[in-house]
Amino acid sequence: MAYRKLEDHGWIEARPQSGYYVKRRAWREPPEPQITAPPARTTPVNMGDMVVKILRDGMRGDVVPLGAAVSGTELLPVKQLSRLAGMIARRSPVAASSYDPSPGHEPLRVQVARRAMEAGCALSPDDIVTTTGSQEAMGLCLRAVAKAGDTIAIESPTYYGLLQQIEVLGMRALEIPMHPRDGVSLEALELALDREAVKACLFVTNFNNPLGCSMPEENKQRLVKMLDRRGIPLIEDDIYGDLPHDGPRPGTCKMYDETGNVMLCSSFSKTLAPGYRVGWCAPGRWREQVTRLKLYTTLATATLPQMAVAEFLANGGYEHHLRKVRRMYAEQVSRAREAVCKYFPPGTKATSPKGGFVLWVELPGGVDSLELHERALKERISIAPGPIFSATMRYRNFVRLNCGYTWSDRIEGAMKRLGEMVGEMGA
Amino acid sequence: MAYRKLEDHGWIEARPQSGYYVKRRAWREPPEPQITAPPARTTPVNMGDMVVKILRDGMRGDVVPLGAAVSGTELLPVKQLSRLAGMIARRSPVAASSYDPSPGHEPLRVQVARRAMEAGCALSPDDIVTTTGSQEAMGLCLRAVAKAGDTIAIESPTYYGLLQQIEVLGMRALEIPMHPRDGVSLEALELALDREAVKACLFVTNFNNPLGCSMPEENKQRLVKMLDRRGIPLIEDDIYGDLPHDGPRPGTCKMYDETGNVMLCSSFSKTLAPGYRVGWCAPGRWREQVTRLKLYTTLATATLPQMAVAEFLANGGYEHHLRKVRRMYAEQVSRAREAVCKYFPPGTKATSPKGGFVLWVELPGGVDSLELHERALKERISIAPGPIFSATMRYRNFVRLNCGYTWSDRIEGAMKRLGEMVGEMGA
Repeated sequence: MAYRKLEDHGWIEARPQSGYYVKRRAWREPPEPQITAPPARTTPVNMGDMVVKILRDGMRGDVVPLGAAVSGTELLPVKQLSRLAGMIARRSPVAASSYDPSPGHEPLRVQVARRAMEAGCALSPDDIVTTTGSQEAMGLCLRAVAKAGDTIAIESPTYYGLLQQIEVLGMRALEIPMHPRDGVSLEALELALDREAVKACLFVTNFNNPLGCSMPEENKQRLVKMLDRRGIPLIEDDIYGDLPHDGPRPGTCKMYDETGNVMLCSSFSKTLAPGYRVGWCAPGRWREQVTRLKLYTTLATATLPQMAVAEFLANGGYEHHLRKVRRMYAEQVSRAREAVCKYFPPGTKATSPKGGFVLWVELPGGVDSLELHERALKERISIAPGPIFSATMRYRNFVRLNCGYTWSDRIEGAMKRLGEMVGEMGA
Repeated sequence: MAYRKLEDHGWIEARPQSGYYVKRRAWREPPEPQITAPPARTTPVNMGDMVVKILRDGMRGDVVPLGAAVSGTELLPVKQLSRLAGMIARRSPVAASSYDPSPGHEPLRVQVARRAMEAGCALSPDDIVTTTGSQEAMGLCLRAVAKAGDTIAIESPTYYGLLQQIEVLGMRALEIPMHPRDGVSLEALELALDREAVKACLFVTNFNNPLGCSMPEENKQRLVKMLDRRGIPLIEDDIYGDLPHDGPRPGTCKMYDETGNVMLCSSFSKTLAPGYRVGWCAPGRWREQVTRLKLYTTLATATLPQMAVAEFLANGGYEHHLRKVRRMYAEQVSRAREAVCKYFPPGTKATSPKGGFVLWVELPGGVDSLELHERALKERISIAPGPIFSATMRYRNFVRLNCGYTWSDRIEGAMKRLGEMVGEMGA
């Protein structure tokens, strides 16, 4: 019974036919950060040079890649996908070289719709527009529903790519408080919507970047109803939705959308191949507008990558691949949390992501993450400092750590070194 | 001597070791349209449903393709390019699957710069940003130098894709008169710039679409100086520059640019593979801004298509391919002009393109090209009616005919039928 209790508490684990073992991760869980408290006013977005510099630094080949949210290619099916692309190029050279204008390659739209249906979301191929990654999808959706000067409600913190889209479109941001496990605070959102003229909400509902949290299904339903009632469209980024660490795929807000008010965006950049630039959106009642905006701005998504992804989804073992990488990401995120506990000074806090591959860490004692970024880079370690995740440059004592790579001594060493630096800086 | 004179006039041709022959195209050249006279005021752009509907109709697989400016795939090296793409995918699966963020794939930028240098235009790989086709390039350049409400000077008529970009960005257009052989009237442009606050010029300087004309080199020099003096950037679309029907490649305005005021855009959609969506721009002194806008809006161009195009430019016989298709396009445009002469009613006029593969035809007797488009479509012939080439829906009695396909009885028959319809409508 005592064993069972320890197991319940996660200190030991039962292995079939072997008895009980002390779990490798028998470390004390780090406390989680508090609910965020961004300012309750809209703001223009001007991320400027900082983000670009940090991104470029993080892409250098000689750094330990804890910065950009990228998977190790060893975790992606790059060989199978490349084999498919090669086969398709040879078998269908004409089709692969020809325009397949917006709304995009039909067999891919069929596969995306099929997978959505299997996940409980009623989409038809005609509901879908393929895009150059979800970055373009997001931009098209924003342009369809808002214009320069309009206010977009975003999560705080949120993915800097969304801030960049808002910035280039000349829109304003309204940061909404985030709960570290449940995502957007619906209470705070409702207050904000009462006070400000919000033109759209742009939320990452599952395994949000950088927090790694997901909205409970009940909150998704409430959110859809709330926004529908107010006539405010929801742009939903579900790019990490296929990557739960355990259990079934979570739902999307789109599942509960009965009026076409939800514009769902995603891509295969996190699960198959970032360089293929294959994303998509299901823009609800703005389908015509988004299709046209895509046609007007980039005309079509590259055909061969779309064909290869469609074929992989149809016959390439995408589900099998997902099962494998989910376990890997779970392990890698767990290792990173463990390393934070082990190497970072007391008072450090971290989120407990249930999917995806990023970890959000709160540094103790007023340690400045921009300074940490500079110091770490000198030792060839890249991290993503907190302020790039906020329109108002908050979260200076936070960092996002990428856990997309297979755990290694090099990564372990970098985590140890980061912890030491944080210790020095906070002393 | 009489023979020589006839040859000079193009009625007969000398064939080496064979004597003189009456040329197959011993038909009377159609007269050319006059210089255009658009309204001298700026206008918002709202092409709306018309263009989209016409584009979609033109992409139907069952129509004679005289609408969209697309090459027959038999004229593109789709097999060689596909073989290269397949080889690269297998040989470098990791690179082909990874992000290659803005400014884009370096080996491609090296090849683009090399070709520009060979054509007399000093560009380095660092000057270049790769894009999702030249459609994206154009949009990025526009966004770098102008904002919603600003006025962009354009050719009249001009390619509808440029009008669409201006429309989605909420900018205004100022149509500048075009000479049917020399392109933009610099005199008219100068007057317009004196009168209106123009934020940028967006011109297709070589084998312009739809007229098929090029600016004389002297005019290019004058234009560069004029705009430089006034501090108005020139966005130069050179997408057809590689396709002269005869003689060397024409220059670009960028060649004469000493201050970085010219933003040169192009792509491989007209010469290699539209579906690869590989374009580029050399944005002069807005390089940083364009690089960042690309990063913010679509992050990166698909990697594998860029690798395949770079390899084709380096070792695939691009020049050899160009020599072949230039002859083909020359022949096809000539055949189309001949057919216009033969089948269209007296009073029909046509341009005499020296490159590219589109022909601009003025219909006699007030024949309405939108109506002709509808009638023709019923008989499964697609054409591009004049009004889609103007922000003010001018050119109702003009059509653009695509000559990108190998001449065939089917095309000849469609031309004949079009001529008959025009005759009926004008009677």
